[in-house]
Amino acid sequence: MKTVAVFYGGESVEHDVSVITGVMTMNAVDKARYEVLPVYAAKNGTFYTGDELFEIDGYKNLDFKKLKKAAFLPGDDTMYVIKGKTLRPLKKISVAINCTHGERGEDGCIAAICKLSHVPIASPGVSPSAISMEKHLSKTVLRGMGVKTLPSVKINTASGAASALKKAGLDFPLIVKPDRGGSSVGISLAKDERELSAAVSLALKFGESAEIEPYAEEFTEINCAAYKNADGVTVVSECEKPFKKGALLSFEDKYVDGERQFPAKIAPALGERVQKITRKVYDELGFEGIVRIDYMIIRGEVYLNEINAVPGSLAYYLFCKTQKSFSSLLTGVIEGAMRRAAPSDTYVKNISTGILDGLKGKGAKRLER
Amino acid sequence: MKTVAVFYGGESVEHDVSVITGVMTMNAVDKARYEVLPVYAAKNGTFYTGDELFEIDGYKNLDFKKLKKAAFLPGDDTMYVIKGKTLRPLKKISVAINCTHGERGEDGCIAAICKLSHVPIASPGVSPSAISMEKHLSKTVLRGMGVKTLPSVKINTASGAASALKKAGLDFPLIVKPDRGGSSVGISLAKDERELSAAVSLALKFGESAEIEPYAEEFTEINCAAYKNADGVTVVSECEKPFKKGALLSFEDKYVDGERQFPAKIAPALGERVQKITRKVYDELGFEGIVRIDYMIIRGEVYLNEINAVPGSLAYYLFCKTQKSFSSLLTGVIEGAMRRAAPSDTYVKNISTGILDGLKGKGAKRLER
Repeated sequence: MKTVAVFYGGESVEHDVSVITGVMTMNAVDKARYEVLPVYAAKNGTFYTGDELFEIDGYKNLDFKKLKKAAFLPGDDTMYVIKGKTLRPLKKISVAINCTHGERGEDGCIAAICKLSHVPIASPGVSPSAISMEKHLSKTVLRGMGVKTLPSVKINTASGAASALKKAGLDFPLIVKPDRGGSSVGISLAKDERELSAAVSLALKFGESAEIEPYAEEFTEINCAAYKNADGVTVVSECEKPFKKGALLSFEDKYVDGERQFPAKIAPALGERVQKITRKVYDELGFEGIVRIDYMIIRGEVYLNEINAVPGSLAYYLFCKTQKSFSSLLTGVIEGAMRRAAPSDTYVKNISTGILDGLKGKGAKRLER
Repeated sequence: MKTVAVFYGGESVEHDVSVITGVMTMNAVDKARYEVLPVYAAKNGTFYTGDELFEIDGYKNLDFKKLKKAAFLPGDDTMYVIKGKTLRPLKKISVAINCTHGERGEDGCIAAICKLSHVPIASPGVSPSAISMEKHLSKTVLRGMGVKTLPSVKINTASGAASALKKAGLDFPLIVKPDRGGSSVGISLAKDERELSAAVSLALKFGESAEIEPYAEEFTEINCAAYKNADGVTVVSECEKPFKKGALLSFEDKYVDGERQFPAKIAPALGERVQKITRKVYDELGFEGIVRIDYMIIRGEVYLNEINAVPGSLAYYLFCKTQKSFSSLLTGVIEGAMRRAAPSDTYVKNISTGILDGLKGKGAKRLER
């Protein structure tokens, strides 16, 4: 039976949300087809595995002594466990699913270790993950693709904000966000310079850069997800409309009291426009796995707000109209990822350069200092 | 004394070139300041370390039995060595330098394992590395930044080429390249449909996508490099003009018989334009380490052709007018990377969500299937 490694947890502020996504996903994987191996990244970054990790109740007080330290090695698709000074092969991994949210996980790091270990991943690869993690970079890429986003400036110091905003022609009210990360953590509204200073200070507690955008008084938030199925066809979900309580969609709105209208009651033409952009972005950035894209509709215009490379709960609920279950959805993305990874083993990796043989000839010049 | 881990080799077609870059770099690091630990990725992806690796002559017939298997573990900045079933800590790593070229190295994978292990890297991070590895994606990002590049299409099958080219308004003669990778491997010129078909087939031997651009009969190639010094200031090199022998700059031109004019004899205003774009791209994409950017000058217009996140020989020769030696250049990038990585330990990583405690309340809904 093939083994699916599910990565989750991690060092980011979104650790707890990721535990929920990870445990849900592990429990949803079809056990008649696959064996599941939990790979839980603790808050200090260490990987653990163990049967205890399937139970969500256990995370309140995890007993790390009952768990096993786990590791991938480069060039080797085996998951190892470490006990003291002993390294023991545990299981050959056929495919991985990334359920980490935020830094050192969703940002391309998990995709990278899977790539180094030759393990296909039923989740976004290194480059789309890395791009989606950075709000400002995402907008640059989207602009290059002809996809509309709100204007913004990225700053590294509170003192740099005023001049950068002026240069970009942006005025109050403004939204200030940490440039990296998600789940609405560290985001605030600034209606004047005093609030801006506080908002930037808050955002810079979470990372080295802050992203500042104009605040739209009235807008509709619309989310839409996509995945690539076993046959390589990109499937786009219907749209949902999440509800918010305060001026901004807060962490609690997103994960604790999350309520939504699904499918969103919006004009069909608007929904189709959102779906068309979702498909374009998913395909052109070369995504794998389930991705959720969040939009803002402002006076009828569609602005792409954020790409979630690893959305909470893997956004499975957005496919409930077309998929029998989360399990069958996962089977599709898992099978597709394995199928599409196969040809990469046949690409040319070796060419005979003769460089290392001929170093006493001309090539050796480069070794002189 | 601080230990610098130098990563090089790897599974890409550029393995041999990377060995040269790696060995040069290891020998150039100032031994009065730092200890150097070689981390050689063999052609199968396994990491090795050992004193034998400092000698370039040894790579013709490497005796792997004399080397030690090496590994980083997530959340741990120690380099371990593996002997049979035993895992032994070898050395705490203070900083890493990435000298891998191509897939599973220069593409963000080495940056990612360093990030997971909390090791600062004096080389580009995950996202600028991943972007620079893909020719088409790089152009999309650059377009979003307002930097001029040649138009292009990216295709995954030979049969898709004709219609994609027509849609983009591109005509013969064309250049066909593997979308990922560098060192001019797999690149060819297509003057008609028959040649196009062969060129695409060749490019698709190296990866899943090919990038097709118009071929400029007459152009000047100009390269320019940049790095961030210990104080965080971006230093841009003078321009060089590499020479080519055939219609395209070949692998041999680049690495075997490489000759160049340095500084390039070009109009000062043109050189300044190239330097200005180099600085903008380096800063806006958030690079660290030494990066070389290659341009084509066509009828006076500057087109950015390619960003090399890990250039051959780390492009040290482009700084020979301003730096005493490759050693002093490396000291600057190493010290800067360590200094700039330090604050990231102070960012908020934990927030109290209460989600995992309150699962019997509202949050638990998400765990139902």
